[in-house]
Amino acid sequence: MAQVNFLQDRALDAIVLGRAGVDLYAREANTDIADITGFDKYVGGSAANIAVAINKLGAKVGFISCVADDSFGRYVQGYLEKQGINLDGMMIDSSGSRTSVAFTEMKPSDCDVLIYRNNASDLMLKTEQIDPEYIKKSKTLIVTGTALSASPSREATLLAMQYARSVGTVVVLDVDYRPKTWRTDVDASIYYGIAANLSDIVIGNREEFDMMETVVAPGNTDDGQTAQRFLTGNSQIVIIKAGELGSRVYCKDGHQFEQGIYRVEAKKPFGSGDSFAGALIWTLTHGGTLEQGVSNGSAAAAINVSGTSCTEAMPTKEELESFIARFEQASR
Amino acid sequence: MAQVNFLQDRALDAIVLGRAGVDLYAREANTDIADITGFDKYVGGSAANIAVAINKLGAKVGFISCVADDSFGRYVQGYLEKQGINLDGMMIDSSGSRTSVAFTEMKPSDCDVLIYRNNASDLMLKTEQIDPEYIKKSKTLIVTGTALSASPSREATLLAMQYARSVGTVVVLDVDYRPKTWRTDVDASIYYGIAANLSDIVIGNREEFDMMETVVAPGNTDDGQTAQRFLTGNSQIVIIKAGELGSRVYCKDGHQFEQGIYRVEAKKPFGSGDSFAGALIWTLTHGGTLEQGVSNGSAAAAINVSGTSCTEAMPTKEELESFIARFEQASR
Amino acid sequence: MAQVNFLQDRALDAIVLGRAGVDLYAREANTDIADITGFDKYVGGSAANIAVAINKLGAKVGFISCVADDSFGRYVQGYLEKQGINLDGMMIDSSGSRTSVAFTEMKPSDCDVLIYRNNASDLMLKTEQIDPEYIKKSKTLIVTGTALSASPSREATLLAMQYARSVGTVVVLDVDYRPKTWRTDVDASIYYGIAANLSDIVIGNREEFDMMETVVAPGNTDDGQTAQRFLTGNSQIVIIKAGELGSRVYCKDGHQFEQGIYRVEAKKPFGSGDSFAGALIWTLTHGGTLEQGVSNGSAAAAINVSGTSCTEAMPTKEELESFIARFEQASR
Amino acid sequence: MAQVNFLQDRALDAIVLGRAGVDLYAREANTDIADITGFDKYVGGSAANIAVAINKLGAKVGFISCVADDSFGRYVQGYLEKQGINLDGMMIDSSGSRTSVAFTEMKPSDCDVLIYRNNASDLMLKTEQIDPEYIKKSKTLIVTGTALSASPSREATLLAMQYARSVGTVVVLDVDYRPKTWRTDVDASIYYGIAANLSDIVIGNREEFDMMETVVAPGNTDDGQTAQRFLTGNSQIVIIKAGELGSRVYCKDGHQFEQGIYRVEAKKPFGSGDSFAGALIWTLTHGGTLEQGVSNGSAAAAINVSGTSCTEAMPTKEELESFIARFEQASR
Repeated sequence: MAQVNFLQDRALDAIVLGRAGVDLYAREANTDIADITGFDKYVGGSAANIAVAINKLGAKVGFISCVADDSFGRYVQGYLEKQGINLDGMMIDSSGSRTSVAFTEMKPSDCDVLIYRNNASDLMLKTEQIDPEYIKKSKTLIVTGTALSASPSREATLLAMQYARSVGTVVVLDVDYRPKTWRTDVDASIYYGIAANLSDIVIGNREEFDMMETVVAPGNTDDGQTAQRFLTGNSQIVIIKAGELGSRVYCKDGHQFEQGIYRVEAKKPFGSGDSFAGALIWTLTHGGTLEQGVSNGSAAAAINVSGTSCTEAMPTKEELESFIARFEQASR
Repeated sequence: MAQVNFLQDRALDAIVLGRAGVDLYAREANTDIADITGFDKYVGGSAANIAVAINKLGAKVGFISCVADDSFGRYVQGYLEKQGINLDGMMIDSSGSRTSVAFTEMKPSDCDVLIYRNNASDLMLKTEQIDPEYIKKSKTLIVTGTALSASPSREATLLAMQYARSVGTVVVLDVDYRPKTWRTDVDASIYYGIAANLSDIVIGNREEFDMMETVVAPGNTDDGQTAQRFLTGNSQIVIIKAGELGSRVYCKDGHQFEQGIYRVEAKKPFGSGDSFAGALIWTLTHGGTLEQGVSNGSAAAAINVSGTSCTEAMPTKEELESFIARFEQASR
Repeated sequence: MAQVNFLQDRALDAIVLGRAGVDLYAREANTDIADITGFDKYVGGSAANIAVAINKLGAKVGFISCVADDSFGRYVQGYLEKQGINLDGMMIDSSGSRTSVAFTEMKPSDCDVLIYRNNASDLMLKTEQIDPEYIKKSKTLIVTGTALSASPSREATLLAMQYARSVGTVVVLDVDYRPKTWRTDVDASIYYGIAANLSDIVIGNREEFDMMETVVAPGNTDDGQTAQRFLTGNSQIVIIKAGELGSRVYCKDGHQFEQGIYRVEAKKPFGSGDSFAGALIWTLTHGGTLEQGVSNGSAAAAINVSGTSCTEAMPTKEELESFIARFEQASR
Repeated sequence: MAQVNFLQDRALDAIVLGRAGVDLYAREANTDIADITGFDKYVGGSAANIAVAINKLGAKVGFISCVADDSFGRYVQGYLEKQGINLDGMMIDSSGSRTSVAFTEMKPSDCDVLIYRNNASDLMLKTEQIDPEYIKKSKTLIVTGTALSASPSREATLLAMQYARSVGTVVVLDVDYRPKTWRTDVDASIYYGIAANLSDIVIGNREEFDMMETVVAPGNTDDGQTAQRFLTGNSQIVIIKAGELGSRVYCKDGHQFEQGIYRVEAKKPFGSGDSFAGALIWTLTHGGTLEQGVSNGSAAAAINVSGTSCTEAMPTKEELESFIARFEQASR
């Protein structure tokens, strides 16, 4: 790819930094949490989802995060290890924090997601636990933005991004903004601005870029202007996702394009962003073009939302290719 | 009952103060948390269990607690209301606390229980939310000890006990000691000592009384000496439970007796204490003797541990009576 | 004294538990803090004041508290040691807490006192730092109520009182209520109630007893009723101070009396309570009657408020006796 | 000045952002804190010192900070207002924070400084209290680094710097590093790195730049390499102070020079950095060259350390000029 240079002599294609936790999905679909009989258990969390997505497509993936020293922490680690994900950067916290848990209804929209993140383990990640040698082993470092929402994880994340820049590891920021984890939008915009400036590629949806523009351009809805604003510092590529309307991609060198979505029936409203990012990075680190990456990302997102969990519904390379082939045939 | 006087002109038989939360039980029995496919969902928490136990036996029950302003909080409230439990003392917290959740394996022993109580809603109960008029409506106030483990719930609980004393409501303390929620055993023993002194009836197991004697009689294992130590202040009855060995009951007037257990095959190691307390208080508030109460408590405990949840496995009056009848027949 | 029995075979007459800190007194009298040129430096804090008062009258005094590991902490320790006060119970905290500092204007009334107690060292006192053997060495344990205002000092204080009760050390509670250090009056009243119940002698002014009656008798202003309310549990003597109007003393055995004040021109509105308590306890532990103790306390208070610091203005035995003699001569 | 462009149509020459507090100086020189009789009272704090320095030289100065709603807060405000400093950016906090207080011995070296900053008011400054219109009124925004040491002041400071950049206000960072206020040097280096990148001029001593290089160049002692490392982003000028050895100045355009010190007998080891920064910025905003600014800064520092307080010993324009003239005459 012209805009970003992935160093090929690296043992890992990607290291993902952010939260890994437990997703508990309502057993009964289209039912309120109060009325379901129980939950199905999966590994989840934005960063874990992305790592699994890339790994399942066949790439070598590492992980930087922190889980609690308890049975959920061990479950998450065991699952990721079994997938073949390298956990050299996974820390264990015994200070009383808890692995993040998300309880979700299974509805295509207006889906209640109840998050247990009081004293969350992933936010206990510390600068002294970030190993520059580990980051140097990877073509890319993908940061999910919730890692910026509190100290000491915030500083650990910024340090990891600085290390990545200094050793030629491409930095990707998936904005992944959860308003409730921040004091104000302004606070969030400050740290997201710093992180975007340290990133080669920034991926977010329109609402997330609105937050990032809270101070600098309140009220702006023009994607082109937004892109120009964030194609500064180290940023080479800005991708603005618009749900049903697809994605708009802007490069610092002036190149830009749009990508529509692969229309499917959604079973749940989440997981799509993570599969998008995963398939995009897999494509780019394996020699694909930006256009191919965004197309693969869109297809992977469609596959994921039509499945019933986030990690389990990530496609393999074969599933991705066959989905696209079927889709193209149908649309002729 | 000679030792304690229950005022009969009260609208409620009992008000229970303590935590109500969500119990998530491993779907597969005898399986580690990492390997189960999901959880069955129930209302739980020591105080909720006791309230349901008393209610199911046919008594009128109220509740003092606090849940989060979210779908789990609403689920807990909805369930208790449907049982017919009065929730005038139930508060809703919107400050970011979370309703307590316990994830449990289903094993008869060595059963991993993973508790999510960082910033727990029930511990947000405040003195200004304790209504003396409500407490005056009940024959008994049953306090579960975890309500003492942190402020502001600690002060709210002590205040409720003081109110109860001043209006003739009998005070029962179910020790319900969870070591991890306290800085040290000594801290715990201080507040449990204060609470025991405010109680007419104190119920705990040997390990719990060991904690309560940390300062005053470290190393003591003599139940009789323990009982004498806590039959001071307002305490009239001390009940020391010893699992397989049954219970020992001591009264300030010198009366004492033992009660064996109803031996059954346990499916889980928890819930027995709550059903014991529930059936005991139901018996006492309905004119039964202390001996009948402890016997009913033991039978209810046996019924509960052979079931698969805490709240759902609480017996009705009929089930309790028929269980005892069957048991007595068999043991002839 | 009939009401309380001081064990005579003790190495120390009194141990005082509470805060020791730095008092910084405005250099210029009758001047606002903004306009003074600087401060005079003294050791202060309610418990330190009482300890110095008793010590200066000739008794043997110990101390239980905590100061910071810095130059103010060392100053406070050095000063108390130089007076001859035993510091075996004085702890040093290095966690970032700070020795309490009070900046005060020097005005007879409407005197601004600015207190620096964010993360105060004295409130870092822990249960594990309370040595029962130390408390056993003393005839009395005098607790100043601010030690109850936060954990872990709150638990350490209650534990020390329990230890004292168990070894025959007379327990005195000087209420010393600072509203700003408590969440609500109700919270304060709960812990003061517990502490009063553990005390042989309770000393406070009318406003302080109002707080203690917040829950049990809101609005009551009748000293006699107040005294009856607190002459329960272990309390034998209740002393209610009324500033200009002197003190009212109530004993459990029905004995009661009043004591007027020694009228002098006050230079500052503080220090009187601490000198009162000091002279009272010195009198009682040296065989004086309750009447003598309260009279000496009133005289010592008068001497103190006419001086320019708290600790330095505490009278010796000779000064106290000569003050009373002069006063009696004048009033003939 | 070639390197940095000060917009002349501004109502204020400088706005200083950081802490204003109370300095309490030992009354007796060369005496330990334990042995002094009291303290002299002054307004202090790095940002307040710089503001007073610039103001006293004749420039128009504004201030962004926060003090407590108490007599020390009012004293600080009253003093700064009386100097003629604009306080439109000064906030008042009533949440229980306290105005920063520093107690200092008066010794030329090994001088104990005891700082009371638990829950310090200046660190309560919030993003929503930063007014871009205010910053737009000034030629420069001078940030002192302790404002970065904790949230919410950290975010407020970064926001103020961003606002300044967006409206053409020159940004100056005075590193002002206090190790104890940071969790680790690495944490500090992350935020100082971000702040340096937002600044036109960065001023620090060798130890401060060591901290800033903790991650990127540990162990480096070469000023030239350091300067190159921080002459990135928006930085145009890096000034590295070396105490007795004077200062080294590096510009992005390659220009560089050294400035020796004005040798005097020091009465205290602090205040020099603040007077240096003040005289430098006064010079630059009034059309002086960088060489003149650094020379004036060095002279002002010498004048200040030979005085007995920080704010009071700041020179006027006349004092500064006459000091330099005398010095030059003497050195001929």
